[in-house]
Amino acid sequence: MESITLTMPLDMHLHLRDGEMLETVAPLTSYSFSGALVMPNLVPPVTTKEMVKEYRKRIKHAIGRDDFEPYMTLFYQNYSREFLESVQNEITAIKIYPSGATTNSEGGVVSFDIEPMRETLQAMSDLGIILSVHGETNGFVMDREAEFMSVYEKLALNFPKLKIIMEHITTADAVAMLDKYDNLYATITVHHLIITLDDVAGGMLRPHLFCKPIAKRPEDRAALLKVALSAHPKVMFGSDSAPHPKHTKESCGCGAGVFTAPIALQLLCEVFEAHDQLGNLQAFVSDNAQRIYGICAEFKEVVLVKHDFVVPEIYGTVVPMKAGETLKWSIERVD
Amino acid sequence: MESITLTMPLDMHLHLRDGEMLETVAPLTSYSFSGALVMPNLVPPVTTKEMVKEYRKRIKHAIGRDDFEPYMTLFYQNYSREFLESVQNEITAIKIYPSGATTNSEGGVVSFDIEPMRETLQAMSDLGIILSVHGETNGFVMDREAEFMSVYEKLALNFPKLKIIMEHITTADAVAMLDKYDNLYATITVHHLIITLDDVAGGMLRPHLFCKPIAKRPEDRAALLKVALSAHPKVMFGSDSAPHPKHTKESCGCGAGVFTAPIALQLLCEVFEAHDQLGNLQAFVSDNAQRIYGICAEFKEVVLVKHDFVVPEIYGTVVPMKAGETLKWSIERVD
Repeated sequence: MESITLTMPLDMHLHLRDGEMLETVAPLTSYSFSGALVMPNLVPPVTTKEMVKEYRKRIKHAIGRDDFEPYMTLFYQNYSREFLESVQNEITAIKIYPSGATTNSEGGVVSFDIEPMRETLQAMSDLGIILSVHGETNGFVMDREAEFMSVYEKLALNFPKLKIIMEHITTADAVAMLDKYDNLYATITVHHLIITLDDVAGGMLRPHLFCKPIAKRPEDRAALLKVALSAHPKVMFGSDSAPHPKHTKESCGCGAGVFTAPIALQLLCEVFEAHDQLGNLQAFVSDNAQRIYGICAEFKEVVLVKHDFVVPEIYGTVVPMKAGETLKWSIERVD
Repeated sequence: MESITLTMPLDMHLHLRDGEMLETVAPLTSYSFSGALVMPNLVPPVTTKEMVKEYRKRIKHAIGRDDFEPYMTLFYQNYSREFLESVQNEITAIKIYPSGATTNSEGGVVSFDIEPMRETLQAMSDLGIILSVHGETNGFVMDREAEFMSVYEKLALNFPKLKIIMEHITTADAVAMLDKYDNLYATITVHHLIITLDDVAGGMLRPHLFCKPIAKRPEDRAALLKVALSAHPKVMFGSDSAPHPKHTKESCGCGAGVFTAPIALQLLCEVFEAHDQLGNLQAFVSDNAQRIYGICAEFKEVVLVKHDFVVPEIYGTVVPMKAGETLKWSIERVD
């Protein structure tokens, strides 16, 4: 049977939430990944060293195993150099959100004017702390990411040594930025390699495929596929897996997020195999991230085989992408 | 108190469904409108003279009053001239759907090649039967209407005496067609004068605002507003009000349709007043339709006043647009 072994897969953009939801979803990622960059948009957001350490403890407890590293992040605010120095060993990146852009982002920045942020960003650059960015304006939903490109350019030019991650990119515009500035990198989700707005709202409305940034046009997906499948050295896998309870997704005002954590590797195999690029999956799902972030992941080998896998209808209270559907690849074992 | 009297308001694009749903929604339209063009996409679709007559009877029964005329339509198939002659007194238009474009449209046409349709369309033209068109391709959801423009051009050029209604237009492209061909007309819904894709999927996902054609970009809405507010002589109000039970809208795969029938006139007053164009509402909501369709509507006067109206949360099983919100205009009385 056809198989592939992925060494130390990493999910460089993950929402684990907290409390009961954390207990439900964290083990689903830690089973098949060596580590994940954990987003800080809790309520309240993670903004102190204590909060980082406590959240990490709760994650480790929910996981209950040692072969998985939660790479912690802080929620961006203007922090002093002293604070950043004191916290830098506890975190891998700082995540910046435009206020209101997505779930629990109300405390994000209202403006991306450089000057008020210069001290913090310069200190991050000096200390080698990576800036992880939710890149959307508050404009028309299909234009938000493209409109944000000028902010990326401003950040990249003003802080040429700051590593800037364009998170969960969804457009050809963002892909084009990768080769324009040395210090811009990107994560790409698996769902944005598969769906467009057509899947969300072209037939029936599909709340479980509704996410932010929203899935875009076919030509955008094609641009994402091109750099992901070729494992462009500046792109990494980041699932942006974001659990919401079923009753809040299937309701009158459903929140944004696609839950892919337990099916991400299987789906990635399917996508890469369909384009005859399975050989590049290792780089996309681990090597690039280790190099860009300078991390040495926990050892783990995940063996996937080309064997039908029926996606469960629900994990706890959370409906995954492809619920009830059959994927072509499954995880055979994890060593 | 500020007030306006609308004489013989007409809704030139309405879904009344059948059975229990028909009983729920028909009286909500017949209360405040003099008549409505009733869409034929039942299961099975309305394709025979008998079906038209029986459906009309069920509608009249559901309404239980005489001051409202259901203008009946046939579901487009290739019909013979003889059949069309025999049915023409029973119908006001024939509605053509691309197969699969919207609710219960599976029996629609697979291709808009002219030749196979020539006999039917020429007979319609000769007999003065209006062609009502759901104008969408099966392309990317945001492009479907724009891509359909070439079909409108082909129809308009091949059948210059056939009156063609571009139904529920949502784009600047469609608006531009109005002045290009004498025999192209359009209906515009009230919700497309208010919402864009941002309202459907820019914040939370809003299933009750999900419809086909989907709401488009801000510049599209601006183009629609321009011709509606000025009561361009070739545009008419057509609500496309389409009831779906609440549990099917707030679910994992929600159907397309916005339910506006009971609040349409109030909302139109709000929109026209906000742009200081209340004086053009009469033409948009009745006069243009009477002239274009050559119909003489049942007499009815609807007096609306600028007085708060709290939209009910639900009508039967159907959640209306603006449920629970307060509109600025209400219907004071119907004479």
